[in-house]
Amino acid sequence: MEMNEKKVPEVVIKRLPRYYRYLKELLNQDIRRISSNALSEMMNVTASQIRQDFNYFGGFGQQGYGYNVEYLINEIGNILGLNDGDTMIIIGAGNLGRALANHNSFIKRGFSLIGIFDNDNRIVGSSINGIKVRSDQEIEDFVRENNVDIAILTLPRAAVHDMAKRLTSCGIKGILNFSYSELELPESVPVENVHLSDTLMTLSYRIKQQKEKN
Amino acid sequence: MEMNEKKVPEVVIKRLPRYYRYLKELLNQDIRRISSNALSEMMNVTASQIRQDFNYFGGFGQQGYGYNVEYLINEIGNILGLNDGDTMIIIGAGNLGRALANHNSFIKRGFSLIGIFDNDNRIVGSSINGIKVRSDQEIEDFVRENNVDIAILTLPRAAVHDMAKRLTSCGIKGILNFSYSELELPESVPVENVHLSDTLMTLSYRIKQQKEKN
Repeated sequence: MEMNEKKVPEVVIKRLPRYYRYLKELLNQDIRRISSNALSEMMNVTASQIRQDFNYFGGFGQQGYGYNVEYLINEIGNILGLNDGDTMIIIGAGNLGRALANHNSFIKRGFSLIGIFDNDNRIVGSSINGIKVRSDQEIEDFVRENNVDIAILTLPRAAVHDMAKRLTSCGIKGILNFSYSELELPESVPVENVHLSDTLMTLSYRIKQQKEKN
Repeated sequence: MEMNEKKVPEVVIKRLPRYYRYLKELLNQDIRRISSNALSEMMNVTASQIRQDFNYFGGFGQQGYGYNVEYLINEIGNILGLNDGDTMIIIGAGNLGRALANHNSFIKRGFSLIGIFDNDNRIVGSSINGIKVRSDQEIEDFVRENNVDIAILTLPRAAVHDMAKRLTSCGIKGILNFSYSELELPESVPVENVHLSDTLMTLSYRIKQQKEKN
């Protein structure tokens, strides 16, 4: 793949997982080739937008003939690092941690969950989705020994910043933070903060707009 | 509040919940007034971006003197419909439904959860966070009688589209969809699709970029 020299804009990066999902869906339906127009209609973005986005990564093949779906999945998967088999741990085995441990779409995307940690002795030693819950005291050793890529944090907000420091010091590669608190770390350790209530607020906005129309 | 006539761009709508969160955080720290420069630094967007965003809604007061935090929270909250006390139900009382029922940030944002539904008779009748789990057969009556605003779907993907039809026909105002399947409904019923694995894929991309730097 020929990589374009231009810096890929944030919005394009954010769209890549969506492309990946739609293309996987096409392959599930045994659709092997798709024109940018058909993809555009399905995804509700313009065909020229799609071509522009893809051009950041070399274009992915001819437009006239359409895109090869499997090739595209593989290329975008590579760009997203989905073929690297990143390992994950979940820290915080409460309701959300438990839900995420059972979230099959993570596994389908090539990530493997190899550890779950909590500081509550009542649940340490139990199993979630076949994985033993360990004491949070073991985190540093575990991350080092297993060269863990990603830590998913579902902790009370008060505990997040300390935990992030501990993880950074033992070499974690990135953090997915579901705790309410906004987390920022040195550029070398990327963080994605997930705010579930943001989406709810956006929905609330749209509902209000609809109500005002009527 | 003087409403600007221009259509508010999607990106601005998406930023509103983030402004709301940061401003709430300031108020928690008893900070009552903030300049667009200080807000800009905190939120990592330019001050001119903030002013542009706010101008879609009339500007929210003078720049030189700074913004009144409480006033801003109230105005943005109004725009987001957070002062309307929207009611919610959760459909699907599995791990994720259970986690969301216990997710306090939803309640803090002014939404009230008034019902949980499932089709599994083994859990119908039990309670989650003080709310009784009802049979999914009761959904239509419940939505009509209680004039429910929002349904949160945490269902297997195969069940989502039928459920959305049922909800639309009994007058739901909006849907927050956590099921893997992308849901689209008539414009009159807004939908927000949450794809937890998209964020994980974005993180994976950033980790890969970092690895390639080293």
